[in-house]
Amino acid sequence: MAEFYDVLRAQRACRSFADRDVDDTVLDKVLWAATRAPSAENRQPWVFVVVRDDATRRALADLTRRTWEEGGRAHSVGRLSERLLAEVDHGAREGLAGAPVMVVVCGDADRGHAAALPASVFPALQNLLLSATAEGLGSVLTTLALVHGDEVAHLLGLPDHVRPMALVPLGWPAAPQGEARRRPLSEVAHRDRYGRGW
Amino acid sequence: MAEFYDVLRAQRACRSFADRDVDDTVLDKVLWAATRAPSAENRQPWVFVVVRDDATRRALADLTRRTWEEGGRAHSVGRLSERLLAEVDHGAREGLAGAPVMVVVCGDADRGHAAALPASVFPALQNLLLSATAEGLGSVLTTLALVHGDEVAHLLGLPDHVRPMALVPLGWPAAPQGEARRRPLSEVAHRDRYGRGW
Repeated sequence: MAEFYDVLRAQRACRSFADRDVDDTVLDKVLWAATRAPSAENRQPWVFVVVRDDATRRALADLTRRTWEEGGRAHSVGRLSERLLAEVDHGAREGLAGAPVMVVVCGDADRGHAAALPASVFPALQNLLLSATAEGLGSVLTTLALVHGDEVAHLLGLPDHVRPMALVPLGWPAAPQGEARRRPLSEVAHRDRYGRGW
Repeated sequence: MAEFYDVLRAQRACRSFADRDVDDTVLDKVLWAATRAPSAENRQPWVFVVVRDDATRRALADLTRRTWEEGGRAHSVGRLSERLLAEVDHGAREGLAGAPVMVVVCGDADRGHAAALPASVFPALQNLLLSATAEGLGSVLTTLALVHGDEVAHLLGLPDHVRPMALVPLGWPAAPQGEARRRPLSEVAHRDRYGRGW
């Protein structure tokens, strides 16, 4: 049994994975959790392609690395702290490739306007990440590979109406993770009108 | 203490609220939960405007009703089941206006590319909805009012770089709610390649 707020507190990006497989039974729970999310008109336009196949996983990891090396890293230098930059750099170059499972989270444009898909797919994705945390899995929401969305679609045989929106590596964390750092409520919450302190 | 999977199971759109206020202490928890979500580069571009003010709440409810009556309803007829259509119709016309609190969830384009905001804001929004559920609050993710996003921005005094992305009415449910209906995993999960059964 996992306490709800403990799970929220523990969720954190994981970019280094232990060399240990993940059972389907755990993935069943995590995918089930994803499908509990709300969606516009309850149309549930989410699609999950769960990749274990070595060649496909490697190809997805390569696309992530390529985007990172072709410009992602340059964009992030100076924007990220040195510590976080080093962690993301490790993840993009090799860490994510070590995840035994990669879930490509997609939106089905036949089940909702393309513009409305994010509001109906990212909540499901967040449920997936939280459930992974509840199960002790490491996970991370990544979108670097999606810069090459057409290649991702080709790799996975996605029909035109199914758009890849995020890539989530899943596996057992290589090391325990601390709590995430977040901005305080006073910076992000407002009362009745923007600028009035919460 | 709320068990994580019980919260996931219980989350459901609520469109009828009891005439009873919500304390700031509960909202503090719900907003804190929202800020635990991941975001691109951990930039946390979320902004929450928590509206209790009567006139502002009424104006937001009016924008929702207007969008519904001006075309939203016509779009949904035939797409939604009769039961869900009646529920959404009631919500848009009067139910949501009965919520004592409305949270306008926004993305700050100064903290991330506009195109990347959904991946960094909707996970936080989902945390907010789950926490509301854990606290026994009713909630619903709505975007109808955002068709008139400029008016929402004007009402709340949002600067240009802060874009309203969703409106979440919050309050105590008028009646107990059952479990949500969802498509089975076999319809939405694929193994290694689209079309291969999970």
